Amino acid sequence: MNTNLEKLRELMRAKGVDAVIIPGTDPHQSEYVSDHWKFIEWVSGYTGEGKVAVTLEKATLWTDSRYFLQAEKELEGTGFELQKADDLESIMQWLANEIREDDTLAIDGHLFTLMEANRLEQLCAENGFLLATDFYPADVIWEDRPEMPKNEAFVHDEEYAGEDVESKLTRTMEKVEASGADSILITALDEIAWLLNLRSSDVDFTPVAIAFFYLSDKDRVLFTDDIINKEVRNHLDNYKVRIKGYDEIEKFLDKRNVDFTIMLDPNKVSDTLGQILECDKVYGASPVEALKGIKNEVQIEGFRRAMERDGAALVRLFMWIEQNAASGTINELDVWEQGKLERGKSDLYRGDSFEMIAGYREHGAIVHYTATPESASTLQGEGLLLVDSGAQYLDGTTDITRTVTLGNPTEQEKHDFTLVLKGHLALSRAKFPVGTNGMQLDAFARMPLWQEAMSYGHGTGHGIGHFLGVHEGSHGIRFNRAMALVALEPGMVTSNEPGVYKEGEYGIRTENVMLVVEGPKTENFGDFLEFETLTLFPYDTRLIDTTMLTAEEVQQINDYHAMVLERLTPYLNEEEVNWLAEKCKALF
Amino acid sequence: MNTNLEKLRELMRAKGVDAVIIPGTDPHQSEYVSDHWKFIEWVSGYTGEGKVAVTLEKATLWTDSRYFLQAEKELEGTGFELQKADDLESIMQWLANEIREDDTLAIDGHLFTLMEANRLEQLCAENGFLLATDFYPADVIWEDRPEMPKNEAFVHDEEYAGEDVESKLTRTMEKVEASGADSILITALDEIAWLLNLRSSDVDFTPVAIAFFYLSDKDRVLFTDDIINKEVRNHLDNYKVRIKGYDEIEKFLDKRNVDFTIMLDPNKVSDTLGQILECDKVYGASPVEALKGIKNEVQIEGFRRAMERDGAALVRLFMWIEQNAASGTINELDVWEQGKLERGKSDLYRGDSFEMIAGYREHGAIVHYTATPESASTLQGEGLLLVDSGAQYLDGTTDITRTVTLGNPTEQEKHDFTLVLKGHLALSRAKFPVGTNGMQLDAFARMPLWQEAMSYGHGTGHGIGHFLGVHEGSHGIRFNRAMALVALEPGMVTSNEPGVYKEGEYGIRTENVMLVVEGPKTENFGDFLEFETLTLFPYDTRLIDTTMLTAEEVQQINDYHAMVLERLTPYLNEEEVNWLAEKCKALF
Repeated sequence: MNTNLEKLRELMRAKGVDAVIIPGTDPHQSEYVSDHWKFIEWVSGYTGEGKVAVTLEKATLWTDSRYFLQAEKELEGTGFELQKADDLESIMQWLANEIREDDTLAIDGHLFTLMEANRLEQLCAENGFLLATDFYPADVIWEDRPEMPKNEAFVHDEEYAGEDVESKLTRTMEKVEASGADSILITALDEIAWLLNLRSSDVDFTPVAIAFFYLSDKDRVLFTDDIINKEVRNHLDNYKVRIKGYDEIEKFLDKRNVDFTIMLDPNKVSDTLGQILECDKVYGASPVEALKGIKNEVQIEGFRRAMERDGAALVRLFMWIEQNAASGTINELDVWEQGKLERGKSDLYRGDSFEMIAGYREHGAIVHYTATPESASTLQGEGLLLVDSGAQYLDGTTDITRTVTLGNPTEQEKHDFTLVLKGHLALSRAKFPVGTNGMQLDAFARMPLWQEAMSYGHGTGHGIGHFLGVHEGSHGIRFNRAMALVALEPGMVTSNEPGVYKEGEYGIRTENVMLVVEGPKTENFGDFLEFETLTLFPYDTRLIDTTMLTAEEVQQINDYHAMVLERLTPYLNEEEVNWLAEKCKALF
Repeated sequence: MNTNLEKLRELMRAKGVDAVIIPGTDPHQSEYVSDHWKFIEWVSGYTGEGKVAVTLEKATLWTDSRYFLQAEKELEGTGFELQKADDLESIMQWLANEIREDDTLAIDGHLFTLMEANRLEQLCAENGFLLATDFYPADVIWEDRPEMPKNEAFVHDEEYAGEDVESKLTRTMEKVEASGADSILITALDEIAWLLNLRSSDVDFTPVAIAFFYLSDKDRVLFTDDIINKEVRNHLDNYKVRIKGYDEIEKFLDKRNVDFTIMLDPNKVSDTLGQILECDKVYGASPVEALKGIKNEVQIEGFRRAMERDGAALVRLFMWIEQNAASGTINELDVWEQGKLERGKSDLYRGDSFEMIAGYREHGAIVHYTATPESASTLQGEGLLLVDSGAQYLDGTTDITRTVTLGNPTEQEKHDFTLVLKGHLALSRAKFPVGTNGMQLDAFARMPLWQEAMSYGHGTGHGIGHFLGVHEGSHGIRFNRAMALVALEPGMVTSNEPGVYKEGEYGIRTENVMLVVEGPKTENFGDFLEFETLTLFPYDTRLIDTTMLTAEEVQQINDYHAMVLERLTPYLNEEEVNWLAEKCKALF
């Protein structure tokens, strides 16, 4: 019996609640949340992405195909049933059969955005349900709940950030005022970190502080419980940023109710905070996201250096894999550990940017595979190994996927690898007019696979923060979502990661990070943009079927490999240089 | 002095109107309008697309780059000034400086959609202007205004249409009821024509009757002044469609004000008609547009036959051009006349589907070039000729562009032609997963040009009606507009027409019409779609630089040419077959 689920139902009965929806996020809509907000895990045992919906009779976990296997395993015996969808509409359709008119659906309004709560409100109205947004079970029944992290914040030096806080605040206020508002509430942790050149370690993989930030032409207030040392205090003082406790945000906003017009991003600000504000509101996409997405020259130069150190660490990692795989002595988790070890040799390394995916053979076909001590496969001297990893360095964030053969590649493996590579190369050499968006470019990477009736179910490219989240907006190279309609601009950074996944056999993905740069300027056809590839590590040429390549593609690979060798050599010893030179040898 | 403009201002003064905006459309938002609605031409002399905005002091014509040259020429001495934009926002920005708060902006509400009028209302509110939607100058001051066309309607036989009216009305009502409405007002002429299997000749190039249609579960009413012969009356009687006069629509709608919920497409229904209705309304995209966009088997088979006859006519046209160009005895207008002559030999021909663009040399670079007796160039034995033409046949509508050399092609011409062809071929051989939209596919056709910093400013593909408008929604292969986000489905028809335009030199465009068909079905990657090319006419191989082609592209061209030769041969005499065989000879 699941006693935690019973405790939740007890509270529901006590509060007159008939159904509850619990999302897996925090009050900042973070991709990675601290343990303090892992209430789904506490109540259901499930550790992946998804939402929980519980009535007095039934308990369900809602997620997408990436997590079906994991969910089925983790939910066994917990009283939770897996539901294969993850949108509010589907959950509400299910609830429509489970609870009755005039029943109460309750949520924690801190964990839903204004937009989501609005949508829920509509769906409840259609079904005749009442919606309560002030149900906080994690605060009440979760006895051993982990504390909110309160780590020591630190300044991200201008030497790396390339722009001072005053300039960032000014540029933000210009956008806020242009929208007709005089103030803005910022709740996304990476936006606050970027804006204040401030970092911390409250969240895994993303070096941010848990905080809110209020900005107006008169006032700048940071709400956080993080430890603020003298350097940080001086830094914030310099820019007249006041510091208040994390929990003081609600009282503070409650007082903003006269003569203010505040800008809110309805896809980011929580319903609870949004509802407290009774002043005039302007809803719009946070201007910080777009400003943050365009990297400056210092950040770009930092990315280039970070990629060199990262590439050198990967040379040592993949050498180590090659030397040890055939003997059957290392497994997928060892690869992660060795990766952290090699990357950690850089002074600027501050941890990985996400949980490494090291997927050997059939594990490579599970797009979001995470090895555990129980699941970790031992590597052998053959088969494909997919390694998707990245790091946080003070001067840049990295994200790279390479698929390598551990020996005896099959024709099918080479064929599929080459198709993926052709798409990856097509996108990376693309030139495109100013104004082109990621939905148009997405097909470049898919075309070779499509022509053989294959595809991949994930996006082709996501933005990447600078010593911040490895996934960020506002743009994206993909076939769905609004971000795919954002025009690419010089200074944006994006991944390029087509793949193909053969269930039970292997997965192939090839990923580089690229920078959008200015391309040819023409009189008759306008100005063009193109990509500079930032990531530096060879493709596994043993997996390339060269008969499938055009002369242009061969040249492109050879040029890239020559650059990789040249730029990584200063970071390597003689043995490593020899190994890399062999990997970067020109095709033909 | 422009006396017509003065008459307009006189009326404005009499009615207390300070500014007026006049669009170039009719109450049905038609692409081609009958002379009855060409009020812009009467007041300004301008014959292209665009809008007019007039104050008591200034008169302006608003259009996009395709019409700048034409507008500058036609507006000379008319008192009208060219403004290089065509959106309501730009016009209102201009007006903001020309008229004052509390001044009145007036429009004819029949000529603006509900959406447009709503937007104007907002913009007026922001500027403090009053908006009057009942200003009808064309009715008052245009003495010699052409009559509304009242031609004889005719039935489009089920033999061609492939579905009876009852089935179409039933499918439409299912969608209407699913939206929560019990009735629908349809104002788009091609939707009415499709729904009732009814055609007429009220509008150039599109075989439609000027009409409105009201449909509910109880009532079916066609409002038209067209001549209704006995056959048409019987046909409509069969389906219980009542007929009323065109002008009775307003009185009829005025009575729909109790216990009705009517569905309206806010991007199609005029503000005037929408405002008359005081019953409940459901706003949504007209379901007829989507239903009409998916062609049935009979229509598809009709398209195939129409393309064969069309291709045969083009063989004769291009033979004639080849035989006469070098002697300097024919010009661009003669090409159009000859095209109509050749196509007219088919019993099923009912006119062209748009004004032929025959652009010789530098005229080819003007995307919407229309030859006039003054402008028409005489063809010579060299240079490029771009011919974009199409026809209305009872069994299908055609639209094809070919660019041919009249002799001595230059390396640059061949290079550009081959780039355009490579994009055209890439799109036509594309396979893509179910769910893919036209914005993703658009890049297929542009990529070869983009890589050399060239592009084209128009869409790559538009839907095509079946013996209806040569341009129709709901889908589109293009980089902008909502229709590019509509997923392609089997049965949709689209053009494939990349191009490149070198001002003052030449224009190149290659266009085929294609049908979306089912492609490979897979277990792991879902179902795929692909295209069947419907258009049948060879590409000019003299303009192909074969060194730029891949083996796959060469094979694709050879296969297409073999099919063209095989399918057109039955329609041609021996001389024509020999000519075509030469044009279709395999590369290599």
